[in-house]
Amino acid sequence: MKHRQILFSALQLTVQPKDALEKLMSKKITAIAWDYIEDENGSFPLIRSMGEIAGTTSFLIAAELMSNANNGKGLMLGGVAGISPPELVIIGAGTVGQFAASAALALGVSVKVFDNSLYKLRRLQKEIGHKVFTSVIQPKVLEKALKRCDVAIGAISAPGGRTPCIVSEDMVKKMKSGSVIVDVSIDKGGCFETSKITTHQKPTFLKHDIIHYCVPNIGSRVSRTASYSLSNIFSPLLIKIADSGGCEKLIQNAKGFRHGVYIYNGTLTSSILGKAFDLPHKNLDLLISAL
Amino acid sequence: MKHRQILFSALQLTVQPKDALEKLMSKKITAIAWDYIEDENGSFPLIRSMGEIAGTTSFLIAAELMSNANNGKGLMLGGVAGISPPELVIIGAGTVGQFAASAALALGVSVKVFDNSLYKLRRLQKEIGHKVFTSVIQPKVLEKALKRCDVAIGAISAPGGRTPCIVSEDMVKKMKSGSVIVDVSIDKGGCFETSKITTHQKPTFLKHDIIHYCVPNIGSRVSRTASYSLSNIFSPLLIKIADSGGCEKLIQNAKGFRHGVYIYNGTLTSSILGKAFDLPHKNLDLLISAL
Amino acid sequence: MKHRQILFSALQLTVQPKDALEKLMSKKITAIAWDYIEDENGSFPLIRSMGEIAGTTSFLIAAELMSNANNGKGLMLGGVAGISPPELVIIGAGTVGQFAASAALALGVSVKVFDNSLYKLRRLQKEIGHKVFTSVIQPKVLEKALKRCDVAIGAISAPGGRTPCIVSEDMVKKMKSGSVIVDVSIDKGGCFETSKITTHQKPTFLKHDIIHYCVPNIGSRVSRTASYSLSNIFSPLLIKIADSGGCEKLIQNAKGFRHGVYIYNGTLTSSILGKAFDLPHKNLDLLISAL
Amino acid sequence: MKHRQILFSALQLTVQPKDALEKLMSKKITAIAWDYIEDENGSFPLIRSMGEIAGTTSFLIAAELMSNANNGKGLMLGGVAGISPPELVIIGAGTVGQFAASAALALGVSVKVFDNSLYKLRRLQKEIGHKVFTSVIQPKVLEKALKRCDVAIGAISAPGGRTPCIVSEDMVKKMKSGSVIVDVSIDKGGCFETSKITTHQKPTFLKHDIIHYCVPNIGSRVSRTASYSLSNIFSPLLIKIADSGGCEKLIQNAKGFRHGVYIYNGTLTSSILGKAFDLPHKNLDLLISAL
Amino acid sequence: MKHRQILFSALQLTVQPKDALEKLMSKKITAIAWDYIEDENGSFPLIRSMGEIAGTTSFLIAAELMSNANNGKGLMLGGVAGISPPELVIIGAGTVGQFAASAALALGVSVKVFDNSLYKLRRLQKEIGHKVFTSVIQPKVLEKALKRCDVAIGAISAPGGRTPCIVSEDMVKKMKSGSVIVDVSIDKGGCFETSKITTHQKPTFLKHDIIHYCVPNIGSRVSRTASYSLSNIFSPLLIKIADSGGCEKLIQNAKGFRHGVYIYNGTLTSSILGKAFDLPHKNLDLLISAL
Amino acid sequence: MKHRQILFSALQLTVQPKDALEKLMSKKITAIAWDYIEDENGSFPLIRSMGEIAGTTSFLIAAELMSNANNGKGLMLGGVAGISPPELVIIGAGTVGQFAASAALALGVSVKVFDNSLYKLRRLQKEIGHKVFTSVIQPKVLEKALKRCDVAIGAISAPGGRTPCIVSEDMVKKMKSGSVIVDVSIDKGGCFETSKITTHQKPTFLKHDIIHYCVPNIGSRVSRTASYSLSNIFSPLLIKIADSGGCEKLIQNAKGFRHGVYIYNGTLTSSILGKAFDLPHKNLDLLISAL
Repeated sequence: MKHRQILFSALQLTVQPKDALEKLMSKKITAIAWDYIEDENGSFPLIRSMGEIAGTTSFLIAAELMSNANNGKGLMLGGVAGISPPELVIIGAGTVGQFAASAALALGVSVKVFDNSLYKLRRLQKEIGHKVFTSVIQPKVLEKALKRCDVAIGAISAPGGRTPCIVSEDMVKKMKSGSVIVDVSIDKGGCFETSKITTHQKPTFLKHDIIHYCVPNIGSRVSRTASYSLSNIFSPLLIKIADSGGCEKLIQNAKGFRHGVYIYNGTLTSSILGKAFDLPHKNLDLLISAL
Repeated sequence: MKHRQILFSALQLTVQPKDALEKLMSKKITAIAWDYIEDENGSFPLIRSMGEIAGTTSFLIAAELMSNANNGKGLMLGGVAGISPPELVIIGAGTVGQFAASAALALGVSVKVFDNSLYKLRRLQKEIGHKVFTSVIQPKVLEKALKRCDVAIGAISAPGGRTPCIVSEDMVKKMKSGSVIVDVSIDKGGCFETSKITTHQKPTFLKHDIIHYCVPNIGSRVSRTASYSLSNIFSPLLIKIADSGGCEKLIQNAKGFRHGVYIYNGTLTSSILGKAFDLPHKNLDLLISAL
Repeated sequence: MKHRQILFSALQLTVQPKDALEKLMSKKITAIAWDYIEDENGSFPLIRSMGEIAGTTSFLIAAELMSNANNGKGLMLGGVAGISPPELVIIGAGTVGQFAASAALALGVSVKVFDNSLYKLRRLQKEIGHKVFTSVIQPKVLEKALKRCDVAIGAISAPGGRTPCIVSEDMVKKMKSGSVIVDVSIDKGGCFETSKITTHQKPTFLKHDIIHYCVPNIGSRVSRTASYSLSNIFSPLLIKIADSGGCEKLIQNAKGFRHGVYIYNGTLTSSILGKAFDLPHKNLDLLISAL
Repeated sequence: MKHRQILFSALQLTVQPKDALEKLMSKKITAIAWDYIEDENGSFPLIRSMGEIAGTTSFLIAAELMSNANNGKGLMLGGVAGISPPELVIIGAGTVGQFAASAALALGVSVKVFDNSLYKLRRLQKEIGHKVFTSVIQPKVLEKALKRCDVAIGAISAPGGRTPCIVSEDMVKKMKSGSVIVDVSIDKGGCFETSKITTHQKPTFLKHDIIHYCVPNIGSRVSRTASYSLSNIFSPLLIKIADSGGCEKLIQNAKGFRHGVYIYNGTLTSSILGKAFDLPHKNLDLLISAL
Repeated sequence: MKHRQILFSALQLTVQPKDALEKLMSKKITAIAWDYIEDENGSFPLIRSMGEIAGTTSFLIAAELMSNANNGKGLMLGGVAGISPPELVIIGAGTVGQFAASAALALGVSVKVFDNSLYKLRRLQKEIGHKVFTSVIQPKVLEKALKRCDVAIGAISAPGGRTPCIVSEDMVKKMKSGSVIVDVSIDKGGCFETSKITTHQKPTFLKHDIIHYCVPNIGSRVSRTASYSLSNIFSPLLIKIADSGGCEKLIQNAKGFRHGVYIYNGTLTSSILGKAFDLPHKNLDLLISAL
Repeated sequence: MKHRQILFSALQLTVQPKDALEKLMSKKITAIAWDYIEDENGSFPLIRSMGEIAGTTSFLIAAELMSNANNGKGLMLGGVAGISPPELVIIGAGTVGQFAASAALALGVSVKVFDNSLYKLRRLQKEIGHKVFTSVIQPKVLEKALKRCDVAIGAISAPGGRTPCIVSEDMVKKMKSGSVIVDVSIDKGGCFETSKITTHQKPTFLKHDIIHYCVPNIGSRVSRTASYSLSNIFSPLLIKIADSGGCEKLIQNAKGFRHGVYIYNGTLTSSILGKAFDLPHKNLDLLISAL
């Protein structure tokens, strides 16, 4: 392991260009996607933490974009007694959706959450505590909700691969002029047909008179919070690596950690990346047992 | 006070026919409207208790009328994960509206409360705890809400006199077929133009394909609960009457109790009833100080 | 698969008479009990949705049966300040029990939940949020609770087979006259000794002066809500069947779906039904691998 | 005001012996009962703060007295899944009762609150948030509750004068052996017939096998918290006195402060104390306008 | 009233220059400060609505200023499991403070609220529902809290006149570098010694490395929400004016409305403005009764 | 199984001295650690129940130790409006920590929970409902929290074996004088370096002026509650033993029950105890399959 390098990075399909991968492979690097490391309960602690941050942040961004100071509609994303509250549609009932919904409800916004998994909708209901409007993604119900809303947040998760496009350009056209879309799913392609990646320098664009916010890795807007969160998870990991006698040992012995490896000593081991970029790849478990 | 009679009754304009009043007057009776008695904090304890009962009951009635067993739409007045929840419009943010809203929210119904008093809307918000959709009665907002809802509850209070008509026949026509109206305000005339008094024997009628429930004194549906509630308030009152040396003494000395008197030894003292039925009436305070 | 028929139905022991089964078998039908289909998390989405509906509905039915309008005691199933609240005993801490408890608590009813599984009692506690009275089923504690209560809801679930009888006729006799029993467990035999199946036409009977409501499949009272809920789950399923190249393919490949099959091309594959009606049955997994 | 002294003290009828009063009067002292000072909203800030402390503390004391370590029943004053929770009866729905109820509910104790004021019961309900069992003091309902409970807290307030005795010795006899009574009302005489003042040195006694805790001024058990609370209220007061040009000036000008005076330059001005100890007393307002 | 003009405006001391007042007076205008109009319950509905908006908005602004996108610390103003939450100090427990606190708590921020009125601190506690850290303004406790916090919001209200300065420049110097101050009280002078009015064009400045946001009338950032809110209150008012036979009539008859008048037909009637700008002023009640 | 004895006991390393074990072994006893029995969901019902009790009780003990009556600081472990609330640090986010936190939050105490498992911190957050301060155990953050707190509860769980020492003597020295430590982890060695086992007779000692409470098996303070809880779990177990044809049969057939055995007919089967006391031990599964 002496002369080899380890790389921790997030496995983001849209951002991981083919030649970057090939360079990593040619340098015999072992690359670990930190967002794919599992904990002892089989859940992804990093994804979950980043999701909490992205959920709350997406709500705060929407609030910003609606204020006058940011050329928005001049609406407050919160309730005031006696005025119909602003409406928020959230697509996706995972961690991101849950934290966005929870913030919005607490401020008195009217919230509708859509997802195709009844299991996730129920979990969201339970974790939020209140009764919330939840619905499976039925096009007619969704379209009606989008027409009436002031903000739509895209927060669908795609377990490996590209996010499905849920909201067609047609539906976006029918939204109220001046409304806001925050597409958190943009990291994996976005769930609005009209979404296109933007940057922190120029985070929004107008399309069909709807303000689109499509900066990937939304957590980087609050980088210090995100760093604390990552170091909370990495510190024990690095200690474990040291205790285990190096990274390679840990890869061999810890199933959860192994789950994050996508290049092992220069060999691509992620079938998703292999298929996406048409690169040769091998199964990590076979590679290791062959040692 | 020996040979005179006292009558406790609710002061209900629509139910109090003129000849009943005249009979009471000719018999030199002292009649006390229990719903007009004030407590030491200047609030009406009986109105409040009856309002709590009417609010919860109106919600339960709406639930009944929507079920198949009662020829309704076959909708459950409650939320289920993954289905758009039924919508409830409540007109009036007093005690009745608050208890109806609170029950509905707890069961996962989507609720909108309308009232012209910001003060009441805020109080409701505060007492219910959650953030609720509240709005002043703007015709356009109200009409949109009525069009979309499954149930509308009329719960506007009229401080002395007839309830104002809030929902025109036109608005009712635009409601979804099979929807339910429960007009709790019917005691004082109703706040839907299409409301007409019904009875426990035949509690509902169809108009414009909307099920109307307009039984006055809705609390009588749960008579035992209502009785407990009244006796909770009357027992201390009767003890007070005895302690004070009779009803007449209490009328003279206790301002809150005096507030409930509408016939005093045969003289009509309620200006509301006097004007409504064109009967001579005198001011009670003057009458008493003349003693 | 051309000439064969598929039947989706609920697997209800008490309603599934032997000759109906034999007819299905003779017609070489493949019958799938939708309530036994598992989702990707190993839970039963349909059972859960139907349970949410049955739980809320059982509470609303109890409220109806207590009102004067339905010849009940004239009690409101809800709290009013200053009056001892009505008491509700719920037997079973599954989904039905949880939704009944949650509705009742929200309306101010005093609730006691009994179950033999500490795990379920804790889960209910957690999902409801408040602290609730929970108890394992100790006969003495249960009897005392039944004596004092105004409504008892039977909501015990029987994983395959008949519900155990929890409440003896003796205990029922000791309940307060005019009280209400809603036995949701009647679908699988009921958990009160005095329960007997009733119909929507005549939903209740009196026994020992207790009003019994024992209509099976309680969700059919709110048929539209139930249908929405089923179609939410069936639509993706039917699309999956089409995508998989027919039902048979899906049975072979999808473990969760296979779990619902009880007749496969005319062969009974449910051991529960086989034993109950003394019919020959085979193991589905063996049948399929024999193909 | 040079040579005169001011005394701040709590106006406690049972503790204020006649000769102490006479000594104060003979020394021409101006004595101010801090618990009778009103703030700008007409409420008693000190009474309220002391009530918050007494309410929470009375609950914590009851918990102590039930544990084995203190020779109690060995019951935990809190809920555990699957066990009938301990029952707590609170008599009095003022601040003390509210804080005791709130603590108990949060820990999963089953709580019943009694008071004769519907207004207070409603306020408690509202401030606590959850629905609670509340009841006016009907002897039969109260007796039943006391028979079943594990702890009873006396927290009735007496606006001037002695607390009425609510619970007779007979009722106490019927309580379960080993139960606990904490009589916070003991400051003004106690609301259990069996209560007798105890001290921090020997805080409890057994009567009819019920543990009685009757230490007056319960807040002194947490003296530091109580001091912080008092100094929070006194510091602005003392500053005001200085700003106003001395105490006498403040008495003349500030109605709320004047409300606390019971001896003014040696003249008794409290009619309650005057009547209780048969001492001559004068009206303070008249005294001052005579200056 | 024909040829005279009425002016509705907010009565803001800092923004109302002397010559503007004199111009209004010379034109014989009747000027009404809408924020001083009382409703039937003696509360200020406009102040309250604007306060709700300002409270929520101040929280959202603080969140913006902390993100990287706005050159802040890169902290998210919300909680993430496993990371010490950001800390927020709120000075003032009125409507603004309450809404800021409520939003922050809901997002998992650690909140401390300071005010000198125990009454307001309790009300805030009650309205928010949760237990919150509240403290009277003790310099040592406040200083410690400011040292540790990430955001401080100034929300003290000054009933007529300038806000007192609560936080000295010395205290500001001790705050953590990069922290944020949002001084909502800036409308009436601000409660931080370092506050200076800023504009929407350049809303912030750095002082002692603390980001200061001091734009007056914070609600104008969400102008549409603010307008809806105002029109909710003005529409019924204008209708009332018409119904009453003109503004002058309403001033004579409606006490609450009269409360808002500060120039009456060219005569200054506000003693606060009179004293502040050294202008002659008369009592409105005397003026009217002289008519 | 006739002449052999079964022993149910808690498996407590610190209390289980070597010779006691050897005696049990020589008597050919089968010993079952009830706290290691698993239920059908793979969780430990007894540990969980005991944890609920220990959590609530540890909070109540801390409250006792802070009062004057027990020579504490004289602080109330609860919030009062206007006073900085007392601070509580909880180390460990398992059941004990959760119940301690939940009680403390409900009474208005400021709570900080530390644990190294993000999974547990999140679960606690979710089960408690409110947002709580949670943090992974970072020495600097923990030390700061301990310095400021009034009470620290040690509630870390050690899955087999000794609790790790989390708080060094140095950190304890820095705590405020008069503060309280309740080390619930003392059963498995304690998580404060200064902890030493105490008894119910003399439950506390002072070290560095900090009150330490280190009685193991904290639930025995509320023995009746603990017994109810155990009998809730043992009764069905004993019935199962009888139904299964004796304990030995159940050990052979029920995996969850087998999990509790640590001596089987005289052979030590717990590797933890074997290693701890250097005693020969065998694998139970092998032993049984050898039968």
